[in-house]
Amino acid sequence: MAQLVRVQNFTVSCDGIAAGEDQTFEQPFGHAEPERLFSWAGATASWPNRTDPGGTRGLDDYFTRDYARGIGAEIMGRNKFGPQRGPWENEEWRGWWGDEPPFHTPVFVLTHHKRPSFTLSDTTFHFVDGDPATVLARAREAARGKDVRIGGGATTVRQFLDADLVDTLHVAVSPVRLGHGVRLWDSPDELLDRFHLEVVPSPSGMTHHLFWRK
Amino acid sequence: MAQLVRVQNFTVSCDGIAAGEDQTFEQPFGHAEPERLFSWAGATASWPNRTDPGGTRGLDDYFTRDYARGIGAEIMGRNKFGPQRGPWENEEWRGWWGDEPPFHTPVFVLTHHKRPSFTLSDTTFHFVDGDPATVLARAREAARGKDVRIGGGATTVRQFLDADLVDTLHVAVSPVRLGHGVRLWDSPDELLDRFHLEVVPSPSGMTHHLFWRK
Repeated sequence: MAQLVRVQNFTVSCDGIAAGEDQTFEQPFGHAEPERLFSWAGATASWPNRTDPGGTRGLDDYFTRDYARGIGAEIMGRNKFGPQRGPWENEEWRGWWGDEPPFHTPVFVLTHHKRPSFTLSDTTFHFVDGDPATVLARAREAARGKDVRIGGGATTVRQFLDADLVDTLHVAVSPVRLGHGVRLWDSPDELLDRFHLEVVPSPSGMTHHLFWRK
Repeated sequence: MAQLVRVQNFTVSCDGIAAGEDQTFEQPFGHAEPERLFSWAGATASWPNRTDPGGTRGLDDYFTRDYARGIGAEIMGRNKFGPQRGPWENEEWRGWWGDEPPFHTPVFVLTHHKRPSFTLSDTTFHFVDGDPATVLARAREAARGKDVRIGGGATTVRQFLDADLVDTLHVAVSPVRLGHGVRLWDSPDELLDRFHLEVVPSPSGMTHHLFWRK
């Protein structure tokens, strides 16, 4: 089996925006209320953060349960890890996810500013500087033959797309319109020169976009 | 995680027929040419019997790769195992699948006629007589906490549905019309009293029906 580089369950508004502006500790997605964008995933039976049994087992559930299948490492942008900018003032911030992050693999956080690795439960965060191909080489090795997930945000996904390093891309497009913020694309058609695309409407109102390399 | 009883990737014609009549060694699906019903699965990247790289990674691929996820045992009807009827005349027949069956778990073959278990690679076939609930209890134990797949044919799926033992059901409906044969249903609406249903058209022409228990 080839080792793939995958974007999974990346959610954007119908106008292509993945996160709002003015990210803070209280608002990881800035002005974009994440519950409006991500409620499709939280409704499914396989959503990892469920606290109650139940949940839907229709189409959207196939996507939430595919999120971790065969993944051996994740690469994320610094703004997915936290709202800080510039040099790390201290090392107290350990991500948004508490003591049990939902990754369960090595995670490579892109940053120009050095910081030691640390481990929370079965997730180890590494802080790495470098171009996408160099960071991907490290993540591939850490994944030990499994796939590498590009975890976002939009800027990071774009960097890896622009470097032509992505094999498959699943983007869940919400009916919500955000107007402004951090943009993934103007239109999914931008990727059609390099990718096959299937567009699959879900009964939940989401429209799943499934890309794979030509 | 609850241990589920799942029907996966069960394919029928648009008129609800899963296999033809007159099953023989040469024609496991009788007059229904399986390549017409199953070509959707064979076109995907995750199809286990692929001999070449490539294949689609769109919607249908989510279904082919979900087939084995979390499955710890399969129950199948005798006619899925082979074309024989009545007492086993000998034990030479070991299924349609060669030395490497695609199950990789214990498999329970429903039959009124005794036959010793045997193992091929990482699949062990057991031959069991009993009502669906009794056989399911054995399969659940063999699955060691993982899910149990009801593997078909249509008669076996109907038995487990009629005994209300199925938790989730994925049926891929082909645009092909067969007219006569072994029928799963007259209409998927028959199950709506007990199941939620999402109907998801695929760009391949298949229509995926996703049922989960109310």
